[in-house]
Amino acid sequence: MPARITLTTDFGLEDHYVASMKGVLLSMGPSDLQLIDISHTIPANDIMAASWTVREAIRTFPVDTVHLVVVDPGVGTDRDAVIVRWNQQWFVGPDNGLFSLMTEHEGVEAWRLDQPSFWLEDVSTTFHGRDVFAPVAAHLAHGVNPEAMGKPDHALLTWRWVEPVLDPDGIRGWVAHIDRFGNLISNIPGAWMVDRPRGSFKIYVGNTIIDALHSTFGSVEAGDEVAYIGSSGMLEVAINQGHAGELLGVPKGSQLTVVFQHA
Amino acid sequence: MPARITLTTDFGLEDHYVASMKGVLLSMGPSDLQLIDISHTIPANDIMAASWTVREAIRTFPVDTVHLVVVDPGVGTDRDAVIVRWNQQWFVGPDNGLFSLMTEHEGVEAWRLDQPSFWLEDVSTTFHGRDVFAPVAAHLAHGVNPEAMGKPDHALLTWRWVEPVLDPDGIRGWVAHIDRFGNLISNIPGAWMVDRPRGSFKIYVGNTIIDALHSTFGSVEAGDEVAYIGSSGMLEVAINQGHAGELLGVPKGSQLTVVFQHA
Amino acid sequence: MPARITLTTDFGLEDHYVASMKGVLLSMGPSDLQLIDISHTIPANDIMAASWTVREAIRTFPVDTVHLVVVDPGVGTDRDAVIVRWNQQWFVGPDNGLFSLMTEHEGVEAWRLDQPSFWLEDVSTTFHGRDVFAPVAAHLAHGVNPEAMGKPDHALLTWRWVEPVLDPDGIRGWVAHIDRFGNLISNIPGAWMVDRPRGSFKIYVGNTIIDALHSTFGSVEAGDEVAYIGSSGMLEVAINQGHAGELLGVPKGSQLTVVFQHA
Repeated sequence: MPARITLTTDFGLEDHYVASMKGVLLSMGPSDLQLIDISHTIPANDIMAASWTVREAIRTFPVDTVHLVVVDPGVGTDRDAVIVRWNQQWFVGPDNGLFSLMTEHEGVEAWRLDQPSFWLEDVSTTFHGRDVFAPVAAHLAHGVNPEAMGKPDHALLTWRWVEPVLDPDGIRGWVAHIDRFGNLISNIPGAWMVDRPRGSFKIYVGNTIIDALHSTFGSVEAGDEVAYIGSSGMLEVAINQGHAGELLGVPKGSQLTVVFQHA
Repeated sequence: MPARITLTTDFGLEDHYVASMKGVLLSMGPSDLQLIDISHTIPANDIMAASWTVREAIRTFPVDTVHLVVVDPGVGTDRDAVIVRWNQQWFVGPDNGLFSLMTEHEGVEAWRLDQPSFWLEDVSTTFHGRDVFAPVAAHLAHGVNPEAMGKPDHALLTWRWVEPVLDPDGIRGWVAHIDRFGNLISNIPGAWMVDRPRGSFKIYVGNTIIDALHSTFGSVEAGDEVAYIGSSGMLEVAINQGHAGELLGVPKGSQLTVVFQHA
Repeated sequence: MPARITLTTDFGLEDHYVASMKGVLLSMGPSDLQLIDISHTIPANDIMAASWTVREAIRTFPVDTVHLVVVDPGVGTDRDAVIVRWNQQWFVGPDNGLFSLMTEHEGVEAWRLDQPSFWLEDVSTTFHGRDVFAPVAAHLAHGVNPEAMGKPDHALLTWRWVEPVLDPDGIRGWVAHIDRFGNLISNIPGAWMVDRPRGSFKIYVGNTIIDALHSTFGSVEAGDEVAYIGSSGMLEVAINQGHAGELLGVPKGSQLTVVFQHA
């Protein structure tokens, strides 16, 4: 199986930064290396958006893929750099909370990078993506043992989002992500909504109220709002062929409330 | 020859969707698989823009490339999913008109996907790009026979754009695409304009009139409008080093008329 | 070692143009060819921005990488097309100044393309990226000798940016690039600023004055301006977690002046 490295950053694609990292990966990685971009338009310095996007993206990737994740507002300060092993995948990046959402579950291992012999010779203070993380990712892709590159310390810096709440009266959650189509992806597990027939609940979000779940966008007329269990397994709200975020006046982080209608 | 799969979507590159599909392709495809992005910024739900872009892009690709095309506003409804064979290339996507412009000519074959054993185990209602189309594209790249994955039915859903008209008095066409530079790409075949000397015609588009064909942008001064036969073989209108769409007030779909000047 | 070709253009990623070039590269290049995008959002027709971006990006790439660079406002006119060899790397593109910043140093070799048998059969007047440059890049990746494809002529068209000036009273330079984060990358070598303690100089840029160098963004509070030696080795000015270009009112090309404070 060829070696694979994915890249996720907030560097954008206008500048040379992503290409600089790829040059390092190709120079130092195995000759059959495949590079896959996850996203480079993570909002600047938005650690949790990166964590969310990487968590969603990696579900389909082959085991032992190396995920290089660089959203690093603290580059060059005393924040640590880490290798993370979770769910049979490798991750490399700063220990600033980037791995919060993808390592909520058990079995996380991590190593703090402390062996400069595995980095570029001259390490800048502002671009560790190129000088530290890319070389380490390339070594991982070669099969170098993480023990050789850092010392084990599995206590990653972790940020916690407010958890959704389910009680007999309803559900309180919020909009964790708004995608390019304007679809509102909540943090409410779809499992909490199954077997709830039309009329047994009301979903309040932005300036609308929805009283039924449908299977997909096209279940309603173009321009109508629709709630459904999305491809991430979460409750979502969209407007068929419209931008729900704009049309319903719902920015990311907005509350989404489900009230159960008792008979 | 290595297996190649191209990707065209309206998913954008901000979200995880494209990466999710690539994860499936890498997990299920041949180990030497090459992935090539055509475009992921097709306007949301714009089936014909996708059809136009894919048609133009594929002209240079090797035979047997697999083109995964997902602009799918009807995902999860009863619209069909298809494999298409045309011009020695493979295509996979929804049967919603996506293949209208690239299969106008003879020799189209198609298979309606009806074998879930070739898809992901859990198929969502809103992301068949990941759950159905990517797995099928990966199987095609492995050389699986389309007959195994669907039943033959060559009658694809097809949308027709208004055809350009040529008569002794002139040509009526329209602007089929405006590119990043603002160049206006019409649906008028360049062959209809050859051997027409300066002064023998007038091109009316937006707020300007052009009475000559030139060979390229730089044939006129910076800031001047220029008509020429473009790289797609169609009549185009541009402003040298300017954005014709904005400067001439011409949105996509605008009429472009050529009036012949009889002696 | 596999063959590698990078691509840098002002074509954007909305249209089919980049994919058309990749189709040619895959059709004509070696079967193990790896394609790497540097950037496709160079500002339209901005030759020097392309030159700057490519110069920065290529520093990390393996020797003998082929860099296809197409920002070509003069396509189809009598401007020449060239292969360039510099710093153990190959470049292919129009001879319009694109290589100005990356070949300032000695040892540049160039060949003017004059052998159409190495191009596509039908060469358009407006898309030499697809019809001339991509085929030539593919041949280079196969190891074809540049002598076979063009005649040697090492005098490339070269544009010169105003050089920074250092004298006993200070430094005069300017902002050569503003990146996605809004960081101001000057043309002042970092070496000119080392061993200058706080208070021994003042940096004037836009509406602010800075009197110290720090090591990185996080050396100052969020929202504060910071000067530092950047990852390109140049003096940079940023706002920690803010967009310096906008917040300091500094467009690209603005003057950045350092005044030495004599005791």
